[in-house]
Amino acid sequence: MMNEKLDRLFSPGSVAVIGASNSFDKLGYHVMKSLVGNYRGRIFPVNPKGDEVWGLTSYPSLKAIPGAVDLAVIAVPAGMVGETLHACGRKNVSGVVLITAGFKEIEDPGGASLEAEIRDIAGRYGLPIIGPNTFGFVNLTSAVNASFTSEFSRIEKGGVALVSQSGGICHLCGFLAIEQRLAMSKLMSLGNRCNVDFPELLTYLVNEDDSTKVIALYIEGLDEPRKLLDAARSVGGGGKPIIALKAGKSEKGDSASRFHTGSLAGNHAIWKGALRQAGILEVATAEELLDTAKAIDSCPLPRGPRVAVLSGQAGPGMIASDTLEPSGLSLSRFSEETQRRINDLLPPIAIRTNPVDMGPAWYNPGNIIEILKAVLADEGTDGVIFLAMYASANLKLADGMVEHMKTADPFGKPVIACFTAPPGIWDGPIGALDRKKGVAILPTPERAARAMANLWKVNALANGKGVKTWDR
Amino acid sequence: MMNEKLDRLFSPGSVAVIGASNSFDKLGYHVMKSLVGNYRGRIFPVNPKGDEVWGLTSYPSLKAIPGAVDLAVIAVPAGMVGETLHACGRKNVSGVVLITAGFKEIEDPGGASLEAEIRDIAGRYGLPIIGPNTFGFVNLTSAVNASFTSEFSRIEKGGVALVSQSGGICHLCGFLAIEQRLAMSKLMSLGNRCNVDFPELLTYLVNEDDSTKVIALYIEGLDEPRKLLDAARSVGGGGKPIIALKAGKSEKGDSASRFHTGSLAGNHAIWKGALRQAGILEVATAEELLDTAKAIDSCPLPRGPRVAVLSGQAGPGMIASDTLEPSGLSLSRFSEETQRRINDLLPPIAIRTNPVDMGPAWYNPGNIIEILKAVLADEGTDGVIFLAMYASANLKLADGMVEHMKTADPFGKPVIACFTAPPGIWDGPIGALDRKKGVAILPTPERAARAMANLWKVNALANGKGVKTWDR
Repeated sequence: MMNEKLDRLFSPGSVAVIGASNSFDKLGYHVMKSLVGNYRGRIFPVNPKGDEVWGLTSYPSLKAIPGAVDLAVIAVPAGMVGETLHACGRKNVSGVVLITAGFKEIEDPGGASLEAEIRDIAGRYGLPIIGPNTFGFVNLTSAVNASFTSEFSRIEKGGVALVSQSGGICHLCGFLAIEQRLAMSKLMSLGNRCNVDFPELLTYLVNEDDSTKVIALYIEGLDEPRKLLDAARSVGGGGKPIIALKAGKSEKGDSASRFHTGSLAGNHAIWKGALRQAGILEVATAEELLDTAKAIDSCPLPRGPRVAVLSGQAGPGMIASDTLEPSGLSLSRFSEETQRRINDLLPPIAIRTNPVDMGPAWYNPGNIIEILKAVLADEGTDGVIFLAMYASANLKLADGMVEHMKTADPFGKPVIACFTAPPGIWDGPIGALDRKKGVAILPTPERAARAMANLWKVNALANGKGVKTWDR
Repeated sequence: MMNEKLDRLFSPGSVAVIGASNSFDKLGYHVMKSLVGNYRGRIFPVNPKGDEVWGLTSYPSLKAIPGAVDLAVIAVPAGMVGETLHACGRKNVSGVVLITAGFKEIEDPGGASLEAEIRDIAGRYGLPIIGPNTFGFVNLTSAVNASFTSEFSRIEKGGVALVSQSGGICHLCGFLAIEQRLAMSKLMSLGNRCNVDFPELLTYLVNEDDSTKVIALYIEGLDEPRKLLDAARSVGGGGKPIIALKAGKSEKGDSASRFHTGSLAGNHAIWKGALRQAGILEVATAEELLDTAKAIDSCPLPRGPRVAVLSGQAGPGMIASDTLEPSGLSLSRFSEETQRRINDLLPPIAIRTNPVDMGPAWYNPGNIIEILKAVLADEGTDGVIFLAMYASANLKLADGMVEHMKTADPFGKPVIACFTAPPGIWDGPIGALDRKKGVAILPTPERAARAMANLWKVNALANGKGVKTWDR
């Protein structure tokens, strides 16, 4: 029942915007901006004052709308939310995004009681609410931007769902996603989690949402953390890795959380163990959350920790190698056959053992792709880190790599790459290569190595839950 | 003598490009591309074949050039380098960039003997050589791009000098610098360090190069590490912090270094202690090297570890706070007066203690700047982390902040900020703000916090050398 409603909420046939506005200073203006020209279903602005909002016929009330409404996005003052929810219930709305703030997150205890009230009303009608106190959500898969930030529509469509307890973190991650071509299915802040919380979302995303391949969580503190952990465990077999950034690690940082309850939320050591037991991989930073999610969405998991580093220049290969060991990975040893093949393709002035310095093959993308293939075929290698820094003279390398890699067979092992170039150079070919399944492109050699380590840890976490263990 | 020659090498009145070419496949083509239209001195292409190279009169030999040559950039085959250096000596060239590879870095022992030979020749004429086996250098201060990568000229002019043992790392860092508005004085790879090594460069940059405010090193392995450490110690009083990324931490990563000699180079634990004793701050990644260098170049060092986090949204403030504690910093406690001022400026629905959630003042840059000023004036706060994520509704915030901050008095304490927005939005105002002294803008809250911690560590390292210790 919840899953069905969430399905309609995230992929509505029609959306009403209650509090829609033509005035830039109102959130209802920005929600309209996010929908108009992007969303393909029907949009019903609701505003008692005007005839038209954003060029669309506006309605004085939800009731006055001449058709069904699947999703209501509410951006009216807190005091009007109760009656608005009644109207939603009577109109048989499937779900609500409640952007309005001023509920249990404020110091005034009136906020908490107002929130209890709206939870009751929603319960009466079986109305799932994303929020209150949220920027909304974006469903990239079906082009629904039900948020006050229209720019989120620029994120590419893909397999990463980010479910966050903070709108600010969604904005941070969403904009980094645009820059770094992280392709997402959904991006949302649950706000005060009135009646839709992490457990409901995990269950929905793992069991019902085909477009989601990996789930990234941002957690501050929870009243009932066990519910999240139980839900993660119960959907653990769904084959969709769950990774989390947990805030409130330090005492002071934690006391800043409005959701701090003195329970599990306050003790990071306990959280650490609990997340691991629930099969959730914890990461340390927002960038690591995104890098790891991108790698999981693009690449198969490595079957072991043995990694080959193929680099166009020695230095980047060294700093990637330095990152591997403390992350639990090791540099693979090539078989005699692989080493022979590399020796055929690279002159003796190159470092031909792992980490390989492919410098002398720089002008020959064909040879470089052959080295990559040979290393991927080596049974002693579980994944490849591929590094190439632009220099004027190798301008055509990226194009050549893309041409060759596009037509290559799908890689059965993860390839995490770093193609660093000045802004505007290589953008096209790098983007094309980044969209090929089997390859993920990240900004630096160290971040590529760390993401590879996390792919391996995700596999190890899955192993801990009964999946066949890789055997060296 | 060395310093004088290096001065003329890095800021030459004229440059000869030996091996200059009109053919894209030659490095001499790319060196010409880097100089033409950018360098303001005289350029003399040297090429026996043609009349004109890149539209400039070309000379069959160095000798044929009708004027003085300060810098010779050499990109001819290794076997021709010896006679070319003789020609440079006879022409009274001040210094050489030797791009040509194929010396001691190759397996063939002929490479090492060739390098010994050219070192002898250079010694005879007192010719300093950057290289061999280098991409060259860029001097942003006086617009000299003596490298084969013309795009380095897009890096902004500022106070960070990067001296690297790897051209690949320079390319990685140089392109990240363009993206992240890291402003540099010089960028160079020392290559095989024929007769100009880290010690010479450190001495020159600290004692002679006014444009350099902070020195970032990338080190793989050295034959005589003590010389670098001694040089760092001896220039330690120069007030220019030195930070370093040391590669070869893992056994395998180290064995990849061609410079590995079994001495200090091979043992990272020893390096760690040695760097600290020499007053050099070691960082963990290329991004941390750049973030820290940028913060040092832009901001005064904090006099203590007590930091205020001012955030437009609670989540980013929390993850910044989480990063502070393990990095040796703490959240500052506001004085009563400061707290009163903040309470006047922020409504009670905001979190007004540190970390401050300025959300409700979002539309009012004037109030936000007043909060910043109050916190900077608080004696219990040594630095500020300022975080703002774009949302459609706060479009004008960045403009407003810039307007106010531009006219604000210089900040006596470090302000490290994070203004995250979709590509193309806020670029202008963020760029303007980032160029103001006293403020450094970094990509994420965690990286801002880590850079603040490194500013404090740089101060602590200086304290260890006799500078007055900050007293809590």
